[in-house]
Amino acid sequence: MQEQYKNMPRLFVADDLAAGASFALNDGQAHYLCHVLRAKPGQSLRLFNGRDGEWCAVLREVTKKKVLVAVTEMTVPQMGVPNIHVLAAVVKKDAFETMVQKACELGAASFRPVITDHTVVRRVNTQRMAAIAQEAAEQCERLTVMDTHDVAPWRAALAALPEGTRVFTGVARSESVQSLTAALAGDIETPVAVLIGPEGGFSDAEKAEILQGIGHITPVALGPRILRADTALIAALSLVQAYAGDW
Amino acid sequence: MQEQYKNMPRLFVADDLAAGASFALNDGQAHYLCHVLRAKPGQSLRLFNGRDGEWCAVLREVTKKKVLVAVTEMTVPQMGVPNIHVLAAVVKKDAFETMVQKACELGAASFRPVITDHTVVRRVNTQRMAAIAQEAAEQCERLTVMDTHDVAPWRAALAALPEGTRVFTGVARSESVQSLTAALAGDIETPVAVLIGPEGGFSDAEKAEILQGIGHITPVALGPRILRADTALIAALSLVQAYAGDW
Repeated sequence: MQEQYKNMPRLFVADDLAAGASFALNDGQAHYLCHVLRAKPGQSLRLFNGRDGEWCAVLREVTKKKVLVAVTEMTVPQMGVPNIHVLAAVVKKDAFETMVQKACELGAASFRPVITDHTVVRRVNTQRMAAIAQEAAEQCERLTVMDTHDVAPWRAALAALPEGTRVFTGVARSESVQSLTAALAGDIETPVAVLIGPEGGFSDAEKAEILQGIGHITPVALGPRILRADTALIAALSLVQAYAGDW
Repeated sequence: MQEQYKNMPRLFVADDLAAGASFALNDGQAHYLCHVLRAKPGQSLRLFNGRDGEWCAVLREVTKKKVLVAVTEMTVPQMGVPNIHVLAAVVKKDAFETMVQKACELGAASFRPVITDHTVVRRVNTQRMAAIAQEAAEQCERLTVMDTHDVAPWRAALAALPEGTRVFTGVARSESVQSLTAALAGDIETPVAVLIGPEGGFSDAEKAEILQGIGHITPVALGPRILRADTALIAALSLVQAYAGDW
């Protein structure tokens, strides 16, 4: 991204983006530009839709009811994110929303909230989750929005991943468990997913299944200290991006 | 750590720990055990002091005014954390406190809040920061508490690091900047520090100094997306731990 575009507002739109295209922004975006940013006609912004790259556009009309934009030039060509996915046990609201935001920021392709034996919270506001993913994409300069899915039992969520996806999940360090970096080494092609357990960890029955490697799961260790769920998510995604992603 | 100790409360104490030692906990801990956990005499807990390893202890007396413990047996021998340090520009309270907590959880040896040209918040409650580090150490099973320092200008904080420490700081990806993993490769002995800039980034003058490599600084990239300060901290520490730490 060139320096001149850096401070322009950046919004996700559903419309097609091409030179000369013109359309109205949705009500939320109109409110944001009109009332929060107090934008005026002639001001520039950046738009992306997950398909056509990022484009510069100019505000043509700014009223309380309608904000019209005219698309001018492409600023960044379209590119995707690596084939890296997240399955995360639902935790309490603030921590869960942080996890959705961070997963998007760290370039995850998809996010699936899952239920495990020790999951206490079992409901997710999917609309809110999608809104958080969109906002994070706008802020972190992604050209796609992370796919967010309905909550599902963890075994069902595993089965819904792309065929052959390698799944890594953190378990307490022991002699039989390798580090995530060791487990990743030597394969940068196969899709990867990280499975983050609930605060109380997996149940003994789940642990037994995981240690037996169901669903292409490889148990791994993330160091000798106990990590909170959100820390484990960020740490695991960072290592996967560094070893098998686009870092 | 053995399974039988897992659910015992775990507290940091200043006292020496050895079989047979007996002492009173401080007022905050007495309140926590008495009123929050409603602990009773005979109940077990775990104690560590940063010097003597982790020990199991038994509550001997539990009143509103005094909680007495008797130390019984060592559960984990003393060990330190790698020579990995954090310098982080002060950000607004919640995000900053998260950064202190996460740095401790990820095994940083020390944390120095720093002021840069674009730092908006310039004051830190050092007592509160030390309390957060202690609580994080109690929860993540560390045997030492992360050292926390007073806020200082970033160049002064750099100068206070152990002699020869390699410092990595994130800058926007460009052809001349290598990834953190590439920069770390091949040296797992020298102390490492990560320098996290403020939300607004470094000023042009600071960037010029950093790109010239003052104070053993190596500019690195953490992927193609823009990371928030707290995400960058966790990502950088995870990679440093994986490559040059104890993961």
